[in-house]
Amino acid sequence: MAMSVGSRGQKKRPLILVCNDDGIGAPGILALASSMDGLGDIFVVAPVTEQSAVGHSITLRDPIRAFTFPFRIPSGSIDAWAVHGTPADCVKLAIEKLLPRQPDLVVSGINQGPNAAVNVIYSGTVSAGTEATILNIPAIAFSYCRWVGGDYEASGRIARQIAVRVLDRGLRSGILLNVNIPDLPFAALKGIKITRQARSKWKESFTERKDPYNRSYYWLSGTFVNLDSRDDTDLGAIENGYVSITPVHHDLTAHDQVDEMRSWTWDDK
Amino acid sequence: MAMSVGSRGQKKRPLILVCNDDGIGAPGILALASSMDGLGDIFVVAPVTEQSAVGHSITLRDPIRAFTFPFRIPSGSIDAWAVHGTPADCVKLAIEKLLPRQPDLVVSGINQGPNAAVNVIYSGTVSAGTEATILNIPAIAFSYCRWVGGDYEASGRIARQIAVRVLDRGLRSGILLNVNIPDLPFAALKGIKITRQARSKWKESFTERKDPYNRSYYWLSGTFVNLDSRDDTDLGAIENGYVSITPVHHDLTAHDQVDEMRSWTWDDK
Repeated sequence: MAMSVGSRGQKKRPLILVCNDDGIGAPGILALASSMDGLGDIFVVAPVTEQSAVGHSITLRDPIRAFTFPFRIPSGSIDAWAVHGTPADCVKLAIEKLLPRQPDLVVSGINQGPNAAVNVIYSGTVSAGTEATILNIPAIAFSYCRWVGGDYEASGRIARQIAVRVLDRGLRSGILLNVNIPDLPFAALKGIKITRQARSKWKESFTERKDPYNRSYYWLSGTFVNLDSRDDTDLGAIENGYVSITPVHHDLTAHDQVDEMRSWTWDDK
Repeated sequence: MAMSVGSRGQKKRPLILVCNDDGIGAPGILALASSMDGLGDIFVVAPVTEQSAVGHSITLRDPIRAFTFPFRIPSGSIDAWAVHGTPADCVKLAIEKLLPRQPDLVVSGINQGPNAAVNVIYSGTVSAGTEATILNIPAIAFSYCRWVGGDYEASGRIARQIAVRVLDRGLRSGILLNVNIPDLPFAALKGIKITRQARSKWKESFTERKDPYNRSYYWLSGTFVNLDSRDDTDLGAIENGYVSITPVHHDLTAHDQVDEMRSWTWDDK
Protein backbone atom coordinates (compact mmCIF):
# COMPACT_ATOMS: atom_id res chain seq x y z
CA MET A 1 0.00 0.00 0.00
CA ALA A 2 3.02 2.29 -0.19
CA MET A 3 1.67 3.99 -3.28
CA SER A 4 -1.88 4.49 -2.10
CA VAL A 5 -3.20 7.65 -0.57
CA GLY A 6 -6.02 8.32 1.81
CA SER A 7 -6.12 4.77 3.11
CA ARG A 8 -7.36 3.57 6.47
CA GLY A 9 -5.46 4.35 9.61
CA GLN A 10 -6.14 8.09 9.81
CA LYS A 11 -6.78 9.22 13.34
CA LYS A 12 -8.70 12.39 12.59
CA ARG A 13 -12.08 12.83 10.97
CA PRO A 14 -11.73 12.95 7.18
CA LEU A 15 -12.11 16.27 5.42
CA ILE A 16 -14.16 16.00 2.23
CA LEU A 17 -14.09 18.79 -0.33
CA VAL A 18 -17.11 19.00 -2.65
CA CYS A 19 -16.79 20.77 -6.01
CA ASN A 20 -18.58 20.74 -9.38
CA ASP A 21 -18.78 22.48 -12.74
CA ASP A 22 -22.51 23.21 -12.92
CA GLY A 23 -22.13 25.97 -10.31
CA ILE A 24 -22.71 26.14 -6.57
CA GLY A 25 -26.48 26.59 -6.99
CA ALA A 26 -26.97 23.42 -9.04
CA PRO A 27 -29.11 20.62 -7.57
CA GLY A 28 -26.37 18.02 -8.16
CA ILE A 29 -23.87 19.59 -5.75
CA LEU A 30 -26.52 19.81 -3.05
CA ALA A 31 -27.26 16.11 -3.57
CA LEU A 32 -23.55 15.26 -3.47
CA ALA A 33 -22.71 17.27 -0.33
CA SER A 34 -25.81 15.85 1.36
CA SER A 35 -24.82 12.30 0.44
CA MET A 36 -21.46 12.83 2.19
CA ASP A 37 -23.18 13.91 5.42
CA GLY A 38 -21.72 12.04 8.38
CA LEU A 39 -18.65 10.73 6.54
CA GLY A 40 -16.42 13.60 7.68
CA ASP A 41 -16.12 17.38 7.75
CA ILE A 42 -17.77 18.54 4.54
CA PHE A 43 -16.71 21.75 2.75
CA VAL A 44 -18.08 23.07 -0.53
CA VAL A 45 -15.98 25.20 -2.93
CA ALA A 46 -17.57 25.56 -6.34
CA PRO A 47 -17.87 28.00 -9.26
CA VAL A 48 -20.41 30.83 -9.07
CA THR A 49 -21.63 30.07 -12.58
CA GLU A 50 -21.89 27.06 -14.82
CA GLN A 51 -18.46 26.03 -16.18
CA SER A 52 -19.38 23.10 -18.40
CA ALA A 53 -16.88 22.15 -21.12
CA VAL A 54 -14.10 24.28 -19.64
CA GLY A 55 -11.83 21.24 -19.66
CA HIS A 56 -8.76 21.59 -17.51
CA SER A 57 -8.79 25.37 -17.64
CA ILE A 58 -7.10 27.47 -14.95
CA THR A 59 -7.24 31.23 -14.49
CA LEU A 60 -3.87 32.93 -14.81
CA ARG A 61 -4.63 36.27 -16.44
CA ASP A 62 -7.38 37.40 -14.06
CA PRO A 63 -7.58 37.37 -10.31
CA ILE A 64 -9.86 34.90 -8.55
CA ARG A 65 -12.45 35.88 -5.96
CA ALA A 66 -14.26 33.70 -3.43
CA PHE A 67 -17.36 34.55 -1.38
CA THR A 68 -18.91 32.61 1.47
CA PHE A 69 -22.17 31.03 0.40
CA PRO A 70 -25.03 29.67 2.54
CA PHE A 71 -25.12 25.88 2.24
CA ARG A 72 -27.18 23.44 4.25
CA ILE A 73 -27.06 19.63 4.29
CA PRO A 74 -29.35 17.40 6.42
CA SER A 75 -27.19 17.67 9.56
CA GLY A 76 -26.98 21.49 9.36
CA SER A 77 -25.09 24.38 7.79
CA ILE A 78 -21.60 23.79 6.40
CA ASP A 79 -18.86 26.15 5.20
CA ALA A 80 -19.11 26.87 1.50
CA TRP A 81 -17.49 29.31 -0.94
CA ALA A 82 -18.58 30.41 -4.39
CA VAL A 83 -15.58 31.10 -6.61
CA HIS A 84 -15.28 33.27 -9.72
CA GLY A 85 -13.19 30.69 -11.53
CA THR A 86 -13.05 27.25 -13.05
CA PRO A 87 -13.44 23.90 -11.24
CA ALA A 88 -9.64 23.44 -11.24
CA ASP A 89 -9.25 26.95 -9.75
CA CYS A 90 -11.73 26.01 -7.00
CA VAL A 91 -9.73 22.96 -5.94
CA LYS A 92 -6.41 24.84 -5.97
CA LEU A 93 -7.83 27.80 -4.01
CA ALA A 94 -9.64 25.55 -1.53
CA ILE A 95 -6.55 23.56 -0.70
CA GLU A 96 -4.17 26.52 -0.57
CA LYS A 97 -6.34 29.20 1.07
CA LEU A 98 -9.82 28.21 2.21
CA LEU A 99 -9.77 24.83 3.97
CA PRO A 100 -8.52 24.37 7.55
CA ARG A 101 -6.41 21.37 6.49
CA GLN A 102 -5.60 19.18 3.47
CA PRO A 103 -8.64 17.21 2.22
CA ASP A 104 -8.70 13.42 2.48
CA LEU A 105 -11.08 13.15 -0.47
CA VAL A 106 -12.28 15.47 -3.24
CA VAL A 107 -15.68 14.67 -4.78
CA SER A 108 -16.99 16.49 -7.82
CA GLY A 109 -20.52 16.70 -9.24
CA ILE A 110 -23.08 15.35 -9.34
CA ASN A 111 -22.96 16.56 -12.94
CA GLN A 112 -26.20 17.03 -14.85
CA GLY A 113 -25.48 14.78 -17.85
CA PRO A 114 -22.94 12.02 -18.48
CA ASN A 115 -19.16 12.51 -18.72
CA ALA A 116 -18.10 9.46 -20.63
CA ALA A 117 -16.00 8.46 -23.65
CA VAL A 118 -14.24 11.37 -25.37
CA ASN A 119 -16.20 13.89 -23.30
CA VAL A 120 -13.98 13.19 -20.30
CA ILE A 121 -11.37 15.60 -21.71
CA TYR A 122 -13.90 18.45 -21.98
CA SER A 123 -15.37 17.89 -18.54
CA GLY A 124 -15.00 20.46 -15.80
CA THR A 125 -16.44 17.93 -13.34
CA VAL A 126 -13.59 15.55 -14.08
CA SER A 127 -10.99 18.33 -14.13
CA ALA A 128 -11.75 19.26 -10.50
CA GLY A 129 -10.93 15.68 -9.59
CA THR A 130 -7.85 15.61 -11.78
CA GLU A 131 -6.53 18.71 -10.06
CA ALA A 132 -6.87 16.88 -6.74
CA THR A 133 -4.99 13.83 -8.02
CA ILE A 134 -2.14 16.05 -9.23
CA LEU A 135 -1.94 17.21 -5.62
CA ASN A 136 -1.94 13.54 -4.53
CA ILE A 137 -5.44 13.58 -3.03
CA PRO A 138 -7.92 10.81 -3.93
CA ALA A 139 -10.83 12.07 -6.01
CA ILE A 140 -14.11 10.91 -7.49
CA ALA A 141 -16.16 12.63 -10.23
CA PHE A 142 -19.88 11.80 -10.38
CA SER A 143 -22.22 12.33 -13.32
CA TYR A 144 -25.93 11.60 -13.59
CA CYS A 145 -26.77 10.41 -17.09
CA ARG A 146 -29.70 12.71 -17.68
CA TRP A 147 -29.37 16.10 -19.38
CA VAL A 148 -32.27 17.95 -17.76
CA GLY A 149 -34.11 17.59 -14.47
CA GLY A 150 -34.63 14.19 -12.90
CA ASP A 151 -33.98 12.99 -9.39
CA TYR A 152 -30.53 12.75 -7.80
CA GLU A 153 -31.64 10.27 -5.14
CA ALA A 154 -30.09 7.14 -6.67
CA SER A 155 -26.94 9.03 -7.73
CA GLY A 156 -26.50 10.36 -4.19
CA ARG A 157 -26.76 6.85 -2.72
CA ILE A 158 -24.23 5.51 -5.19
CA ALA A 159 -21.91 8.48 -4.50
CA ARG A 160 -21.97 7.70 -0.80
CA GLN A 161 -21.25 4.00 -1.35
CA ILE A 162 -18.26 4.71 -3.53
CA ALA A 163 -16.92 7.47 -1.26
CA VAL A 164 -17.13 5.14 1.76
CA ARG A 165 -15.12 2.53 -0.11
CA VAL A 166 -12.48 5.05 -1.25
CA LEU A 167 -12.14 6.57 2.23
CA ASP A 168 -11.66 3.04 3.52
CA ARG A 169 -9.27 1.62 0.90
CA GLY A 170 -7.63 4.69 -0.60
CA LEU A 171 -6.75 5.02 -4.27
CA ARG A 172 -3.44 4.57 -6.01
CA SER A 173 -1.62 7.90 -6.21
CA GLY A 174 -2.70 9.94 -9.23
CA ILE A 175 -5.92 7.99 -9.83
CA LEU A 176 -9.37 9.55 -10.11
CA LEU A 177 -12.58 7.53 -10.35
CA ASN A 178 -14.89 8.82 -13.06
CA VAL A 179 -18.38 7.59 -12.14
CA ASN A 180 -21.42 7.72 -14.43
CA ILE A 181 -24.80 6.75 -13.00
CA PRO A 182 -27.65 5.71 -15.33
CA ASP A 183 -30.96 7.53 -15.09
CA LEU A 184 -32.74 4.75 -13.19
CA PRO A 185 -34.24 4.38 -9.71
CA PHE A 186 -31.75 2.94 -7.20
CA ALA A 187 -33.50 -0.45 -7.11
CA ALA A 188 -33.33 -0.74 -10.90
CA LEU A 189 -29.54 -0.20 -11.11
CA LYS A 190 -27.93 -3.52 -12.05
CA GLY A 191 -24.65 -2.99 -10.18
CA ILE A 192 -21.24 -1.36 -10.58
CA LYS A 193 -18.84 -2.05 -13.45
CA ILE A 194 -15.18 -1.03 -13.75
CA THR A 195 -14.79 0.22 -17.30
CA ARG A 196 -12.55 1.97 -19.82
CA GLN A 197 -13.41 5.08 -21.84
CA ALA A 198 -15.25 4.18 -25.03
CA ARG A 199 -13.81 5.46 -28.30
CA SER A 200 -16.13 8.09 -29.69
CA LYS A 201 -16.21 11.44 -31.40
CA TRP A 202 -18.45 14.38 -32.10
CA LYS A 203 -19.82 15.05 -35.54
CA GLU A 204 -19.55 18.82 -35.31
CA SER A 205 -22.00 21.26 -36.69
CA PHE A 206 -21.96 25.01 -36.41
CA THR A 207 -25.21 26.90 -36.66
CA GLU A 208 -24.53 30.15 -38.48
CA ARG A 209 -26.50 33.28 -37.57
CA LYS A 210 -26.24 36.90 -38.70
CA ASP A 211 -26.08 39.85 -36.32
CA PRO A 212 -28.02 43.11 -37.11
CA TYR A 213 -24.91 44.31 -39.01
CA ASN A 214 -24.97 41.19 -41.23
CA ARG A 215 -21.85 39.72 -39.69
CA SER A 216 -21.79 35.96 -39.14
CA TYR A 217 -21.49 34.26 -35.81
CA TYR A 218 -21.56 30.55 -35.04
CA TRP A 219 -23.02 28.33 -32.34
CA LEU A 220 -21.11 25.13 -31.78
CA SER A 221 -23.26 22.04 -31.60
CA GLY A 222 -22.93 18.50 -32.83
CA THR A 223 -23.96 14.90 -32.66
CA PHE A 224 -22.19 12.40 -30.44
CA VAL A 225 -20.94 9.33 -32.30
CA ASN A 226 -20.18 6.21 -30.27
CA LEU A 227 -17.55 4.12 -32.06
CA ASP A 228 -17.27 1.44 -29.41
CA SER A 229 -20.04 0.31 -27.05
CA ARG A 230 -18.61 -2.97 -25.88
CA ASP A 231 -19.58 -4.16 -22.41
CA ASP A 232 -16.23 -3.15 -20.89
CA THR A 233 -16.67 0.53 -21.82
CA ASP A 234 -18.27 3.34 -19.86
CA LEU A 235 -20.97 3.79 -22.49
CA GLY A 236 -21.64 0.06 -22.64
CA ALA A 237 -22.09 -0.17 -18.88
CA ILE A 238 -24.43 2.81 -18.74
CA GLU A 239 -26.56 1.52 -21.64
CA ASN A 240 -26.92 -1.78 -19.84
CA GLY A 241 -28.08 -0.16 -16.58
CA TYR A 242 -24.81 -0.42 -14.64
CA VAL A 243 -23.01 2.33 -12.74
CA SER A 244 -19.73 2.86 -14.63
CA ILE A 245 -16.49 3.53 -12.77
CA THR A 246 -13.52 4.37 -14.99
CA PRO A 247 -10.17 4.82 -13.22
CA VAL A 248 -8.59 7.87 -14.86
CA HIS A 249 -5.08 9.35 -14.68
CA HIS A 250 -3.48 12.48 -16.10
CA ASP A 251 -0.55 10.90 -17.96
CA LEU A 252 -1.42 11.52 -21.61
CA THR A 253 1.62 9.63 -22.95
CA ALA A 254 0.65 7.02 -25.54
CA HIS A 255 3.14 4.54 -24.08
CA ASP A 256 2.58 1.96 -26.83
CA GLN A 257 3.80 4.52 -29.38
CA VAL A 258 7.00 5.45 -27.56
CA ASP A 259 8.88 2.30 -28.56
CA GLU A 260 7.48 2.26 -32.07
CA MET A 261 8.52 5.85 -32.73
CA ARG A 262 12.07 5.28 -31.47
CA SER A 263 12.69 3.46 -34.77
CA TRP A 264 11.85 6.56 -36.80
CA THR A 265 14.76 8.32 -38.48
CA TRP A 266 15.11 12.09 -38.68
CA ASP A 267 17.05 14.11 -41.19
CA ASP A 268 19.92 15.52 -39.23
CA LYS A 269 18.69 15.96 -35.68
CA MET B 1 -0.76 0.73 -41.93
CA ALA B 2 -4.52 0.24 -41.75
CA MET B 3 -4.73 2.28 -38.56
CA SER B 4 -2.56 5.17 -39.66
CA VAL B 5 -3.86 8.40 -41.05
CA GLY B 6 -2.36 10.97 -43.37
CA SER B 7 0.18 8.53 -44.80
CA ARG B 8 1.86 8.65 -48.20
CA GLY B 9 -0.12 8.06 -51.35
CA GLN B 10 -2.26 11.19 -51.38
CA LYS B 11 -2.64 12.63 -54.84
CA LYS B 12 -3.46 16.19 -53.93
CA ARG B 13 -1.32 18.80 -52.25
CA PRO B 14 -1.61 18.48 -48.47
CA LEU B 15 -3.63 21.04 -46.56
CA ILE B 16 -1.91 22.15 -43.36
CA LEU B 17 -3.89 23.97 -40.67
CA VAL B 18 -1.84 26.14 -38.29
CA CYS B 19 -3.26 27.04 -34.87
CA ASN B 20 -1.89 28.12 -31.48
CA ASP B 21 -2.91 29.37 -28.03
CA ASP B 22 -0.75 32.49 -27.78
CA GLY B 23 -3.00 34.33 -30.26
CA ILE B 24 -2.78 34.99 -33.98
CA GLY B 25 -0.39 37.94 -33.50
CA ALA B 26 2.22 35.94 -31.57
CA PRO B 27 5.68 35.48 -33.11
CA GLY B 28 5.55 31.70 -32.66
CA ILE B 29 2.63 31.16 -35.05
CA LEU B 30 4.32 33.29 -37.70
CA ALA B 31 7.45 31.17 -37.31
CA LEU B 32 5.39 27.95 -37.53
CA ALA B 33 3.33 28.94 -40.58
CA SER B 34 6.52 30.16 -42.28
CA SER B 35 8.32 26.90 -41.53
CA MET B 36 5.50 24.99 -43.30
CA ASP B 37 5.92 27.12 -46.46
CA GLY B 38 6.15 24.88 -49.53
CA LEU B 39 4.89 21.72 -47.81
CA GLY B 40 1.28 22.26 -48.86
CA ASP B 41 -1.57 24.73 -48.77
CA ILE B 42 -1.17 26.58 -45.49
CA PHE B 43 -4.14 28.05 -43.57
CA VAL B 44 -4.05 29.80 -40.22
CA VAL B 45 -6.99 29.76 -37.79
CA ALA B 46 -6.05 30.99 -34.32
CA PRO B 47 -7.49 32.81 -31.31
CA VAL B 48 -7.67 36.62 -31.32
CA THR B 49 -6.18 36.79 -27.82
CA GLU B 50 -3.84 34.71 -25.71
CA GLN B 51 -5.55 31.53 -24.46
CA SER B 52 -2.81 29.99 -22.34
CA ALA B 53 -3.89 27.44 -19.72
CA VAL B 54 -7.38 27.08 -21.16
CA GLY B 55 -6.88 23.32 -21.32
CA HIS B 56 -9.35 21.50 -23.49
CA SER B 57 -11.97 24.20 -23.20
CA ILE B 58 -14.70 24.63 -25.81
CA THR B 59 -17.25 27.43 -26.12
CA LEU B 60 -20.83 26.27 -25.76
CA ARG B 61 -22.59 29.12 -23.98
CA ASP B 62 -21.46 31.95 -26.27
CA PRO B 63 -21.39 32.22 -30.03
CA ILE B 64 -18.06 32.14 -31.84
CA ARG B 65 -16.93 34.77 -34.35
CA ALA B 66 -14.15 34.60 -36.94
CA PHE B 67 -12.58 37.45 -38.90
CA THR B 68 -10.15 37.28 -41.80
CA PHE B 69 -6.69 38.40 -40.74
CA PRO B 70 -3.74 39.52 -42.88
CA PHE B 71 -1.03 36.86 -42.73
CA ARG B 72 2.12 36.64 -44.82
CA ILE B 73 4.70 33.86 -45.03
CA PRO B 74 7.86 33.97 -47.20
CA SER B 75 6.07 32.79 -50.37
CA GLY B 76 3.26 35.36 -50.00
CA SER B 77 -0.10 36.00 -48.34
CA ILE B 78 -2.15 33.08 -47.05
CA ASP B 79 -5.72 32.79 -45.81
CA ALA B 80 -5.99 33.32 -42.07
CA TRP B 81 -8.81 33.83 -39.57
CA ALA B 82 -8.76 35.24 -36.05
CA VAL B 83 -11.34 33.53 -33.84
CA HIS B 84 -13.01 34.74 -30.65
CA GLY B 85 -12.68 31.36 -28.99
CA THR B 86 -10.34 28.73 -27.62
CA PRO B 87 -7.74 26.70 -29.57
CA ALA B 88 -10.13 23.72 -29.66
CA ASP B 89 -12.90 26.00 -30.99
CA CYS B 90 -10.51 27.18 -33.74
CA VAL B 91 -9.82 23.65 -34.96
CA LYS B 92 -13.50 22.68 -34.92
CA LEU B 93 -14.59 25.86 -36.71
CA ALA B 94 -11.77 25.63 -39.26
CA ILE B 95 -12.61 22.07 -40.23
CA GLU B 96 -16.36 22.53 -40.27
CA LYS B 97 -16.72 26.03 -41.76
CA LEU B 98 -13.57 27.83 -42.88
CA LEU B 99 -11.27 25.45 -44.79
CA PRO B 100 -11.89 24.40 -48.40
CA ARG B 101 -11.28 20.73 -47.50
CA GLN B 102 -10.27 18.46 -44.61
CA PRO B 103 -6.70 19.14 -43.38
CA ASP B 104 -4.01 16.48 -43.80
CA LEU B 105 -2.08 17.84 -40.83
CA VAL B 106 -2.80 20.22 -37.95
CA VAL B 107 0.20 21.97 -36.38
CA SER B 108 -0.09 24.07 -33.24
CA GLY B 109 2.32 26.60 -31.76
CA ILE B 110 5.08 27.45 -31.66
CA ASN B 111 4.23 28.07 -28.02
CA GLN B 112 6.25 30.59 -26.01
CA GLY B 113 7.34 28.36 -23.13
CA PRO B 114 7.47 24.58 -22.67
CA ASN B 115 4.43 22.27 -22.49
CA ALA B 116 5.86 19.27 -20.72
CA ALA B 117 5.11 16.96 -17.79
CA VAL B 118 1.85 17.73 -15.98
CA ASN B 119 1.45 20.99 -17.91
CA VAL B 120 0.30 19.06 -20.97
CA ILE B 121 -3.21 18.89 -19.50
CA TYR B 122 -3.41 22.67 -19.06
CA SER B 123 -2.03 23.46 -22.51
CA GLY B 124 -4.14 25.16 -25.14
CA THR B 125 -1.38 24.46 -27.68
CA VAL B 126 -1.73 20.73 -27.08
CA SER B 127 -5.55 20.90 -26.97
CA ALA B 128 -5.70 22.23 -30.54
CA GLY B 129 -3.79 19.16 -31.62
CA THR B 130 -5.90 16.84 -29.48
CA GLU B 131 -9.04 18.21 -31.09
CA ALA B 132 -7.58 17.27 -34.49
CA THR B 133 -6.77 13.73 -33.37
CA ILE B 134 -10.33 13.27 -32.11
CA LEU B 135 -11.36 14.10 -35.68
CA ASN B 136 -8.80 11.53 -36.92
CA ILE B 137 -6.36 14.08 -38.36
CA PRO B 138 -2.62 13.81 -37.54
CA ALA B 139 -1.41 16.64 -35.35
CA ILE B 140 1.78 18.07 -33.86
CA ALA B 141 2.07 20.62 -31.02
CA PHE B 142 5.32 22.63 -30.83
CA SER B 143 6.66 24.52 -27.84
CA TYR B 144 9.83 26.58 -27.53
CA CYS B 145 11.32 26.18 -24.05
CA ARG B 146 11.81 29.84 -23.32
CA TRP B 147 9.24 31.97 -21.48
CA VAL B 148 9.98 35.38 -22.98
CA GLY B 149 11.48 36.56 -26.27
CA GLY B 150 14.21 34.58 -27.96
CA ASP B 151 14.53 33.40 -31.54
CA TYR B 152 12.20 30.87 -33.18
CA GLU B 153 14.68 29.98 -35.93
CA ALA B 154 15.80 26.62 -34.55
CA SER B 155 12.24 25.72 -33.47
CA GLY B 156 10.94 26.50 -36.96
CA ARG B 157 13.55 24.25 -38.58
CA ILE B 158 12.71 21.41 -36.20
CA ALA B 159 8.97 21.93 -36.82
CA ARG B 160 9.51 21.58 -40.54
CA GLN B 161 11.60 18.42 -40.16
CA ILE B 162 9.00 16.72 -38.00
CA ALA B 163 6.08 17.86 -40.17
CA VAL B 164 7.80 16.47 -43.29
CA ARG B 165 8.24 13.12 -41.56
CA VAL B 166 4.62 13.01 -40.37
CA LEU B 167 3.24 14.01 -43.79
CA ASP B 168 5.35 11.21 -45.23
CA ARG B 169 4.70 8.41 -42.72
CA GLY B 170 1.40 9.37 -41.10
CA LEU B 171 0.60 8.82 -37.46
CA ARG B 172 -1.41 6.13 -35.78
CA SER B 173 -5.04 7.20 -35.49
CA GLY B 174 -5.66 9.29 -32.37
CA ILE B 175 -1.98 10.15 -31.79
CA LEU B 176 -0.61 13.67 -31.38
CA LEU B 177 3.10 14.47 -31.17
CA ASN B 178 3.90 16.89 -28.37
CA VAL B 179 7.22 18.50 -29.28
CA ASN B 180 9.35 20.63 -26.95
CA ILE B 181 12.41 22.37 -28.34
CA PRO B 182 15.21 23.51 -26.01
CA ASP B 183 16.30 27.15 -26.12
CA LEU B 184 19.49 26.50 -28.10
CA PRO B 185 20.75 27.43 -31.56
CA PHE B 186 19.94 24.77 -34.18
CA ALA B 187 23.56 23.58 -34.39
CA ALA B 188 23.70 23.10 -30.62
CA LEU B 189 20.62 20.81 -30.45
CA LYS B 190 21.81 17.28 -29.68
CA GLY B 191 19.09 15.42 -31.58
CA ILE B 192 15.51 14.20 -31.18
CA LYS B 193 14.34 11.88 -28.39
CA ILE B 194 11.02 10.04 -28.11
CA THR B 195 9.92 10.51 -24.52
CA ARG B 196 7.15 10.08 -21.97
CA GLN B 197 5.60 12.79 -19.79
CA ALA B 198 7.61 13.32 -16.60
CA ARG B 199 5.76 13.08 -13.31
CA SER B 200 5.60 16.52 -11.78
CA LYS B 201 3.34 18.90 -9.92
CA TRP B 202 2.88 22.54 -9.05
CA LYS B 203 3.42 23.81 -5.57
CA GLU B 204 0.60 26.31 -5.62
CA SER B 205 0.67 29.70 -4.10
CA PHE B 206 -1.99 32.35 -4.20
CA THR B 207 -1.00 35.96 -3.82
CA GLU B 208 -3.73 37.73 -1.87
CA ARG B 209 -4.53 41.37 -2.62
CA LYS B 210 -7.23 43.73 -1.34
CA ASP B 211 -9.45 45.82 -3.60
CA PRO B 212 -10.33 49.44 -2.63
CA TYR B 213 -13.37 48.05 -0.74
CA ASN B 214 -11.13 45.78 1.36
CA ARG B 215 -12.33 42.61 -0.32
CA SER B 216 -9.74 39.91 -1.00
CA TYR B 217 -8.81 38.64 -4.41
CA TYR B 218 -6.18 36.08 -5.36
CA TRP B 219 -3.62 35.64 -8.12
CA LEU B 220 -2.76 32.06 -8.87
CA SER B 221 0.93 31.37 -9.14
CA GLY B 222 3.19 28.56 -8.09
CA THR B 223 6.47 26.74 -8.37
CA PHE B 224 6.92 23.83 -10.73
CA VAL B 225 8.20 20.68 -9.04
CA ASN B 226 9.79 18.00 -11.21
CA LEU B 227 9.41 14.60 -9.55
CA ASP B 228 11.06 12.61 -12.31
CA SER B 229 13.79 13.83 -14.68
CA ARG B 230 15.05 10.54 -16.01
CA ASP B 231 16.49 10.53 -19.53
CA ASP B 232 13.38 8.96 -21.06
CA THR B 233 11.12 11.85 -19.95
CA ASP B 234 10.26 15.06 -21.78
CA LEU B 235 11.92 17.16 -19.06
CA GLY B 236 15.01 14.96 -19.06
CA ALA B 237 15.43 15.27 -22.82
CA ILE B 238 15.01 19.05 -22.80
CA GLU B 239 17.46 19.49 -19.93
CA ASN B 240 20.02 17.47 -21.85
CA GLY B 241 19.66 19.58 -25.00
CA TYR B 242 17.46 17.19 -27.01
CA VAL B 243 14.22 17.97 -28.83
CA SER B 244 11.54 15.96 -26.97
CA ILE B 245 8.72 14.24 -28.87
CA THR B 246 6.07 12.66 -26.67
CA PRO B 247 3.33 10.73 -28.46
CA VAL B 248 0.09 11.71 -26.73
CA HIS B 249 -3.45 10.32 -26.90
CA HIS B 250 -6.76 11.35 -25.38
CA ASP B 251 -7.71 8.12 -23.64
CA LEU B 252 -7.46 9.00 -19.96
CA THR B 253 -8.29 5.48 -18.76
CA ALA B 254 -5.74 4.19 -16.25
CA HIS B 255 -5.77 0.75 -17.87
CA ASP B 256 -3.53 -0.82 -15.23
CA GLN B 257 -6.14 0.02 -12.60
CA VAL B 258 -9.12 -1.47 -14.44
CA ASP B 259 -8.24 -5.08 -13.60
CA GLU B 260 -7.15 -4.28 -10.07
CA MET B 261 -10.38 -2.48 -9.27
CA ARG B 262 -12.54 -5.32 -10.63
CA SER B 263 -11.65 -7.19 -7.41
CA TRP B 264 -13.17 -4.48 -5.23
CA THR B 265 -16.44 -5.32 -3.53
CA TRP B 266 -19.32 -2.89 -3.15
CA ASP B 267 -22.07 -2.91 -0.60
CA ASP B 268 -25.16 -3.84 -2.51
CA LYS B 269 -24.66 -2.54 -6.05
